[in-house]
Amino acid sequence: MSLTESHPPQEAPVRGRPRSEAVERAIIEGTMKLLEDGVPLAELSIERIARTAGVGKATIYRRWRGKEELFVDVVRSTEPPDPELPGTSMRDDLVVLLEALRRRGLANRTSAILHNVHVQMKTSPRIWAAYHNAVIAPRRRLGLEVLRRGQQDGELRTDVDLELVHDIVFGPMLTRSLLHPDAELPEGLAEQLVDTLLEGLRPVSSPMV
Amino acid sequence: MSLTESHPPQEAPVRGRPRSEAVERAIIEGTMKLLEDGVPLAELSIERIARTAGVGKATIYRRWRGKEELFVDVVRSTEPPDPELPGTSMRDDLVVLLEALRRRGLANRTSAILHNVHVQMKTSPRIWAAYHNAVIAPRRRLGLEVLRRGQQDGELRTDVDLELVHDIVFGPMLTRSLLHPDAELPEGLAEQLVDTLLEGLRPVSSPMV
Repeated sequence: MSLTESHPPQEAPVRGRPRSEAVERAIIEGTMKLLEDGVPLAELSIERIARTAGVGKATIYRRWRGKEELFVDVVRSTEPPDPELPGTSMRDDLVVLLEALRRRGLANRTSAILHNVHVQMKTSPRIWAAYHNAVIAPRRRLGLEVLRRGQQDGELRTDVDLELVHDIVFGPMLTRSLLHPDAELPEGLAEQLVDTLLEGLRPVSSPMV
Repeated sequence: MSLTESHPPQEAPVRGRPRSEAVERAIIEGTMKLLEDGVPLAELSIERIARTAGVGKATIYRRWRGKEELFVDVVRSTEPPDPELPGTSMRDDLVVLLEALRRRGLANRTSAILHNVHVQMKTSPRIWAAYHNAVIAPRRRLGLEVLRRGQQDGELRTDVDLELVHDIVFGPMLTRSLLHPDAELPEGLAEQLVDTLLEGLRPVSSPMV
């Protein structure tokens, strides 16, 4: 148990939770290993994870309130990190957000485990709610904030509900990544989407006519 | 077994398969009843369905090649039927297709069983593939055909890949229905989506400036 008490010297305890990156990594990797071995999410217990990671159950509970929170971090550890926004324009920020979504879609496709975990998460309402609150909801808020700034700066029309604009911008990429596993996610898709959406689907009428 | 041999007089045997709507209905309703009672899709056997519906196993196999095909029809029986296209314009056809998607989304939300069956289907690759081939792929082909006609008639720009336009048009509604169970699906959403997408997200520049 002494391992769990050793803080890296540069790190102050956060919210009273003793931290040690090596231990956290061991626990997350132990969970991944069990998932890779085909253990269904529903059958993974904190006890089994503790045994696989070579730590005590208390060591896990000191870091995560429960199985749900731990899984959210496991899934996050396999996904590319969230990007920095350039802040140069709404258009550029949206391209960066959509590009991150495209990359997560690709990661989800190439990693059978990650895909499998996502599918299993959806069948567990508690784990799905934890993932939604920790990961999806903040992403949505960020997207809405970028769109709101776009309206203020005159880049986005103001006569359409922002929630709807959000789904218009992110829906096509989400559909491709999550609902059509065979659809292409080529490089440049993020730019193409944003520019097509800004311009609209109507043919550009020739100014000569 | 004699019940299964009785054809309604107005109906000729189709593709050599003896049909009786009453028997089919009993089998589909029997399957629904088992699902409503909480039996997981994976545990439903043709034998159990036959017993619940009061028919022999052969009666089921005469109508469906297997469990997968039967489930597809069970799911279809709970969904609103696919709509007729008005054919007056691409815009009108897209509105009708999106409105049907909105109604299916609402049906999926209000019926806990239907929702549950959808989630379970996704965890069974064979059932999902059968549903995809029988239901989703034809819908996608129809949407692409409407868009292709729109390009021919000058309603849709021709410089964007049709597959991408398809996801731009249907992605937002799919995202709302399937990925954000809390998002609103209000009346008029189909029209609003199509018109916003055709026009684009850029502010309409005032002709006076």
